[in-house]
Amino acid sequence: MRFPLVFKTLSVIWLILAFFMFLCSLYAFYYDEYAAFKSFQITIFFIIAVSIVFLTFIKKLKNSTLATKDSFLLVTLSWISASFFGALPFYFSDSIPSFTNCFFETASGFTTTGASILTNIESLPKSILLWRSITNWLGGMGIVVLTVAILPLLGVGGIQLLKAEAPGPSLDKVSFRIAKTAKFLWYIYFGFTLLLFALLLLGGMNFFDAITHAFSTLATGGFSVKQQNVMYYKSPFIQYTIAAFMLISGMNFALHYRLLLGNFKRFSLDSELKAYITIIFISVGLVTLNLFFQYDTEIEESFRLALFQVLTILTATGFATANFELWPFFSQVILFLLMFIGGCSGSTSGGIKVVRILILLKQALNEMKFLLHPRGIFMIKLNKQPVKKDIVYAVSGFFFLYIGTILFITLIVASGGNSITTSLSASLATLGNIGPGFGSVGPSETYAHLSNYVKWALSLGMIAGRLEIYTFFIIFTPYFWKK
Amino acid sequence: MRFPLVFKTLSVIWLILAFFMFLCSLYAFYYDEYAAFKSFQITIFFIIAVSIVFLTFIKKLKNSTLATKDSFLLVTLSWISASFFGALPFYFSDSIPSFTNCFFETASGFTTTGASILTNIESLPKSILLWRSITNWLGGMGIVVLTVAILPLLGVGGIQLLKAEAPGPSLDKVSFRIAKTAKFLWYIYFGFTLLLFALLLLGGMNFFDAITHAFSTLATGGFSVKQQNVMYYKSPFIQYTIAAFMLISGMNFALHYRLLLGNFKRFSLDSELKAYITIIFISVGLVTLNLFFQYDTEIEESFRLALFQVLTILTATGFATANFELWPFFSQVILFLLMFIGGCSGSTSGGIKVVRILILLKQALNEMKFLLHPRGIFMIKLNKQPVKKDIVYAVSGFFFLYIGTILFITLIVASGGNSITTSLSASLATLGNIGPGFGSVGPSETYAHLSNYVKWALSLGMIAGRLEIYTFFIIFTPYFWKK
Repeated sequence: MRFPLVFKTLSVIWLILAFFMFLCSLYAFYYDEYAAFKSFQITIFFIIAVSIVFLTFIKKLKNSTLATKDSFLLVTLSWISASFFGALPFYFSDSIPSFTNCFFETASGFTTTGASILTNIESLPKSILLWRSITNWLGGMGIVVLTVAILPLLGVGGIQLLKAEAPGPSLDKVSFRIAKTAKFLWYIYFGFTLLLFALLLLGGMNFFDAITHAFSTLATGGFSVKQQNVMYYKSPFIQYTIAAFMLISGMNFALHYRLLLGNFKRFSLDSELKAYITIIFISVGLVTLNLFFQYDTEIEESFRLALFQVLTILTATGFATANFELWPFFSQVILFLLMFIGGCSGSTSGGIKVVRILILLKQALNEMKFLLHPRGIFMIKLNKQPVKKDIVYAVSGFFFLYIGTILFITLIVASGGNSITTSLSASLATLGNIGPGFGSVGPSETYAHLSNYVKWALSLGMIAGRLEIYTFFIIFTPYFWKK
Repeated sequence: MRFPLVFKTLSVIWLILAFFMFLCSLYAFYYDEYAAFKSFQITIFFIIAVSIVFLTFIKKLKNSTLATKDSFLLVTLSWISASFFGALPFYFSDSIPSFTNCFFETASGFTTTGASILTNIESLPKSILLWRSITNWLGGMGIVVLTVAILPLLGVGGIQLLKAEAPGPSLDKVSFRIAKTAKFLWYIYFGFTLLLFALLLLGGMNFFDAITHAFSTLATGGFSVKQQNVMYYKSPFIQYTIAAFMLISGMNFALHYRLLLGNFKRFSLDSELKAYITIIFISVGLVTLNLFFQYDTEIEESFRLALFQVLTILTATGFATANFELWPFFSQVILFLLMFIGGCSGSTSGGIKVVRILILLKQALNEMKFLLHPRGIFMIKLNKQPVKKDIVYAVSGFFFLYIGTILFITLIVASGGNSITTSLSASLATLGNIGPGFGSVGPSETYAHLSNYVKWALSLGMIAGRLEIYTFFIIFTPYFWKK
């Protein structure tokens, strides 16, 4: 294990956080939020001190290539440590009582989950809320780079699909390619954020609301600066705009990149994208009709509510324009099912991801053909290309581990005295990086009332889910630490 | 497709049902249950008429070997048609109102689910209740033969594990071996039933209660002749005895066979059995402690309640000695998790089955090793033998299809206006052939209040679950019907 290299890289990540905290502190200074300003300053000082120790005392490294194990460690530690350092401004400014809550909220931010323990969001200093939204945005950016550029190289949970598509990488070119890909993804992410920001301003939001919601939407994070969440904004234009950008953020950013390069054909032929759109189409249709006939509202309003909630759950954003716990159970269960699926791979969304569901479905159907013709050879195709058996294996393992982890976390939540619905949906909503669940963690409630140890378990669940489970769990196997 | 052969074989199965109905009709005659007697007679007449048509008009078949497709059709149709014919005595005697309810109750019997729509069991004629318990018992016998002798040959969902263990079958010997295995399994099943019957008499049950509960226990069916279920019997001896036989019925009957042959080593080394015992050990321990500290009862009573409920859910029997919906949520969620697992393969239990969970767990761990050493070769072992990749594939496909079916049925139940907890657990409890769930289908409730179409969906779910899903679904693929 190359610990020096891992920690040197981590230091760079922490310094980036410090830079954004510095921007927030300027905002705090400008608006006279003294406690917040001080807390940012202390945290920045602390981060710089720690980073300097690592950067200075670790002498110039000759070989700066991360081995596989180092990468796993780096990725997991970066999310854990970012959640730790990111929590400090909340803690030092007394904006959020108890460090457990601070860590939960920050982990929820960086993993773009959007589950919150805040019960009176508007009472917080604006600079603190800005930082909260920035954790969403930075987390989202991190995830795109992670899932498009890094994890495929490590082969986690079958997303090496993407790797297989790219021109075969020779090992020296890897870091160069990562850097190049990351740069382009960053442009796209930044561009979309800016566009949404402008549209939200146009829709009547003020500067602060527009920028924070743009941050949370692109990250499919779901943090809002209003306790009422997006329900606060009655404008259909704003709701449709946010819905459109949730749709975009739930797509594979590598596809956006291709589209930008003019490769519309590849974009339109993508199997995962087609399945993603189909799922949205069917779900929105069913929920719209269900709401329309139940409530006797206008069809446009039913459609808008359905569209927004389907997208916010499927893309794992977690915004709310309605308390869907008051909806008919049929619509509730549709949302519950969408929590399992999630958006596309290489997006900022959460869940199992559409491509994996697609592979497993094709595999299950194939198995039936195989039963009838045990000597036949049946292949799974995706994007008109055969999918390797190894990938099917990885995806199967992922699915089992995902369901197993959901059930395990459910047990932990239940041990804190929570009902089956609350426990299961809290587990699902955090591991899938969605945000709100059902029961006492529903869209009109928060996670504040849960016991401390449950919050820690859910925080780790958010990080595990964000890192496609394997990346997180692998660190805890004895096999990982064997020489 | 050899329809003549399929229907000829089905006729034989129907005639067996008619024989047992005849026994019940004698009972009805003896106890002056006139309506019941008449209903049995009509049904028997009907079955004989239909069977004669099939047996006579289908001329002597030259080739009496079932091809793969025929076997799938035969197995699925036998459970569906048995549920149809078996429902007629309930219907004709007016014991159960509406044919939907009759079919639900009978499908629940033959699939050994034990979910019931009866709200006043004691008011039914005893001969009808006897028939109800016999559906459990015959269903259980059918399942043992099916899962030990037939499905492995068809390779459904990875239980060909067992096949791999047996001496390689040449095709001519298959039917002979099935017949021989089936005969021995029948002896074991019959012997255990007799033993339990004797013990229950010894424990103070009357003849009728003892025989019906012996039937339901060996089948892990869960039908009781008391509305209060096993809660009615306060005797710890009876409760422990039934618990012990649930434990036995949840084991692979092929292992019982081996034990009978004196092969104790193979018995004690079985990976699935070890995992099964471990799961029971941990679950009973946790629930016992949870109940003990919650309720301040005696430790023996906590243990007995925990043991009975853990076994009744894990083995998918579905008896009740306590309304576990009043238990602390931690214990509830443990039972909820056990619903996913089920007993051992080749038993009369339900659920995913321990061996599949074991394979998937080992596969998921293997995947982590593979991530760290992409060029390594890692094998899964079971009973100290490597598991073939094809089996891992089949099991993965099974798991996905199982979870997918649970969620799909959940959606159907929810569309009838049922809560998430009710819908999900009703789906889980029927597909897993367990019986009681949570919410409004909990252990102190029935399935009576559900809409008709929901009952039909759940009935089909029970049959699909019983036939290891693939056997059922494969019939509905266009691929199956292609020449």
